[in-house]
Amino acid sequence: MSNEQIQWWVTNFNLPFEVLGTLAFAFSGLIEAARKKLDIVGMAMVTAVAAFGGGTLRDILLNRSPLFWIANDWWIWTILVICGLAMIFFRGRHFEFTERAMQWPDALGLGVFASGGTMIALQSGTSAIVAVIMGVITSIFGSVLRDVFTNQVPRAFTDHQPYASVAFLGCWIVVLADVMALPAPLSVTIGAVVTIALRVAVIVFRWRVPSWRV
Amino acid sequence: MSNEQIQWWVTNFNLPFEVLGTLAFAFSGLIEAARKKLDIVGMAMVTAVAAFGGGTLRDILLNRSPLFWIANDWWIWTILVICGLAMIFFRGRHFEFTERAMQWPDALGLGVFASGGTMIALQSGTSAIVAVIMGVITSIFGSVLRDVFTNQVPRAFTDHQPYASVAFLGCWIVVLADVMALPAPLSVTIGAVVTIALRVAVIVFRWRVPSWRV
Amino acid sequence: MSNEQIQWWVTNFNLPFEVLGTLAFAFSGLIEAARKKLDIVGMAMVTAVAAFGGGTLRDILLNRSPLFWIANDWWIWTILVICGLAMIFFRGRHFEFTERAMQWPDALGLGVFASGGTMIALQSGTSAIVAVIMGVITSIFGSVLRDVFTNQVPRAFTDHQPYASVAFLGCWIVVLADVMALPAPLSVTIGAVVTIALRVAVIVFRWRVPSWRV
Repeated sequence: MSNEQIQWWVTNFNLPFEVLGTLAFAFSGLIEAARKKLDIVGMAMVTAVAAFGGGTLRDILLNRSPLFWIANDWWIWTILVICGLAMIFFRGRHFEFTERAMQWPDALGLGVFASGGTMIALQSGTSAIVAVIMGVITSIFGSVLRDVFTNQVPRAFTDHQPYASVAFLGCWIVVLADVMALPAPLSVTIGAVVTIALRVAVIVFRWRVPSWRV
Repeated sequence: MSNEQIQWWVTNFNLPFEVLGTLAFAFSGLIEAARKKLDIVGMAMVTAVAAFGGGTLRDILLNRSPLFWIANDWWIWTILVICGLAMIFFRGRHFEFTERAMQWPDALGLGVFASGGTMIALQSGTSAIVAVIMGVITSIFGSVLRDVFTNQVPRAFTDHQPYASVAFLGCWIVVLADVMALPAPLSVTIGAVVTIALRVAVIVFRWRVPSWRV
Repeated sequence: MSNEQIQWWVTNFNLPFEVLGTLAFAFSGLIEAARKKLDIVGMAMVTAVAAFGGGTLRDILLNRSPLFWIANDWWIWTILVICGLAMIFFRGRHFEFTERAMQWPDALGLGVFASGGTMIALQSGTSAIVAVIMGVITSIFGSVLRDVFTNQVPRAFTDHQPYASVAFLGCWIVVLADVMALPAPLSVTIGAVVTIALRVAVIVFRWRVPSWRV
């Protein structure tokens, strides 16, 4: 790579993370829309909300403008094309999506967004705790809004399997790596990998958070 | 009209559209509040959310400030007066609102807001696809928030009758007219009329969008 | 107090109000989370949304930046510590929270936030009616979002006991006191006390707002 290209990747290192996380969450929204038997418009909306909801809320709270999907409008085309393809694909077949099918792309999106959201907040000059909260908001609000729009109590709030708490932990790892002056792309990668690994472990080994006795 | 007055109307051409659309959606919120037997405060809130929700979300996403109903505070008085009158009117009578009663003002609001929202975004300098999405958001989020606050899956997502897709089409017509360098008021009018006509046709002829076979 | 300290309190007079209101709403969110048997993450989220939701929406609508809980990040620590303590406390005991238990902290938060929110809007230069609406939004949207996230029709909309209307009245008192050129801390205090007293009277004497006959 030329020096210029390297420079570009250093400033845009979080682009592949954003792409991966957005696609993963879009897919989780798509599965949920299919399970709820929404029409094609509802499918596009729930997919878009799941994919963009967390990042949009983060940017509004931090007053960052323009929003990432307004500045990079190929995001919108991508979601529209995915929904179109999904519609064609689903119509020809009979599918039963289980709730578990959604968990794998969801875990991927969780880690990537938690980690990336924390770094974006840190680079906006927020304090550590605000950066962590922004990471958590980025990673879980897509799924929260997806569930509110499909009229359910958000699973992130009731699952009794560590979800937001895993993201919370991963965000602190990014902050720690940043304090240790690691390069930003490395910090984000470490945070994302740890979060994803933990979430997968949670699903596989069925770890639980303490529940109420009230 | 004097030259000055003409100038005023050219810059504010979208005011009558905004008024019409807002009143139409306010009325749809009012009917919904009556159907759900909310109290007078709930009625005012759901009416306001239906009337202002879409435009407010659009302005927040585009970072336009101040919001239109903060800059023009007679909007708030209008909603309060409408709710007061409705309360007096409804108390003296026994009404059964069918779901269909809401469809006519809703169709009017849909067309006017889709078309006007697209033009506002275009004039903020967004790309065509972002303008279209803003038009769709302006036109459907009032009704989406109305349904979320009354604890339902938004009808815009499940209706199986083209609703947001009609708005989507209408928004593209505005973009097309704008590319053809038509004057803005004309573009908005064409877009609104086509959208309203299509939506009325959908209701009358019971057109449907493809549903899932999963 | 030194002159400097007096000066500080004059500019920050609304800090104790904010603290009191936020803690009161946080406690109402906590009780609701316990009643719905959410997990610890859901508890933290619903507590945070109840405590910060109204003020955050107000600041986004008025385009005030940075948000108060981003500028003062000890707020986030406070909520986390409260949730941690509550979890430890609740785990050792068996509690049945009635819906009425939540009403008392809620009444306190309602008055303080309605009054403080109105003053903040007035000082941002909004008109009287916009300031009143901002006061109402600040005071009720925490509870509205709390109920949406726990999948209920917001009680503020269906209670048939004056709630938002009490806040509405209290906000006008703040505006009136401000027009009469009373010092801001006094205006806010009067508004808050009247609102809280009225809301307590509503609960104790079971006053009702007119309901639908449709």
